[in-house]
Amino acid sequence: MNDWLEQVRWDEHGLVAAVAQDAASGRVLTLAWMNRTALAETARRGEAVYWSRSRQRLWHKGESSGHVQRVVELRLDCDGDAILLRVEQAGGIACHTGRERCFYRKLDKESWVTTDAVIKDPAAIYGKT
Amino acid sequence: MNDWLEQVRWDEHGLVAAVAQDAASGRVLTLAWMNRTALAETARRGEAVYWSRSRQRLWHKGESSGHVQRVVELRLDCDGDAILLRVEQAGGIACHTGRERCFYRKLDKESWVTTDAVIKDPAAIYGKT
Repeated sequence: MNDWLEQVRWDEHGLVAAVAQDAASGRVLTLAWMNRTALAETARRGEAVYWSRSRQRLWHKGESSGHVQRVVELRLDCDGDAILLRVEQAGGIACHTGRERCFYRKLDKESWVTTDAVIKDPAAIYGKT
Repeated sequence: MNDWLEQVRWDEHGLVAAVAQDAASGRVLTLAWMNRTALAETARRGEAVYWSRSRQRLWHKGESSGHVQRVVELRLDCDGDAILLRVEQAGGIACHTGRERCFYRKLDKESWVTTDAVIKDPAAIYGKT
């Protein structure tokens, strides 16, 4: 009866925070959100499916970029309100800016400094040539 | 002027998600929340300070357990609504259950299975002997 989905503590919007980590490098790639259907679909497909809060719809990560995240492992935290996905990141690019990870800015003397290079131009990723 | 704090996209509750990762092992330890003061204090002290949603107050991680998180690096994601902390975890225990990390349950055939051992009894950690 999908008890495992009942054990997640969905917030007032029916969402849970989901952290994606590269299974090989250990880098934290993204923080996104899942609703019940997204988490069920992630488990069923073996690829990350999130809930896009900006577009208010299910978002199969990589559906337009090809940069899918194959799930190696799914974890739940102690109070049930956060998911950890260890993934294989297709193309080595998780961020819509064409970088490996969304966390490409580092705090340095009270400034967020970009430390990570763009691997592929987003225009090329999304076919807007 | 604290411009760097203005660049964070605080949610409707004035919070941002904060992922703590062990800088040595690469393990994702916890997902917690910060408000503006918590993030400023984290940077000032060099130790993780969160906003406890359940207790509705600032929470200097380790204040009662001793399990402080010394900050090695602070990162911000592409849309500014998630923080990544790479930390040195005192005692090697981040979770209030006495485990290394909060993500101690793994999905295995539609069940969340506990994979990580308790390192120290919470009663001993919190002095309830």
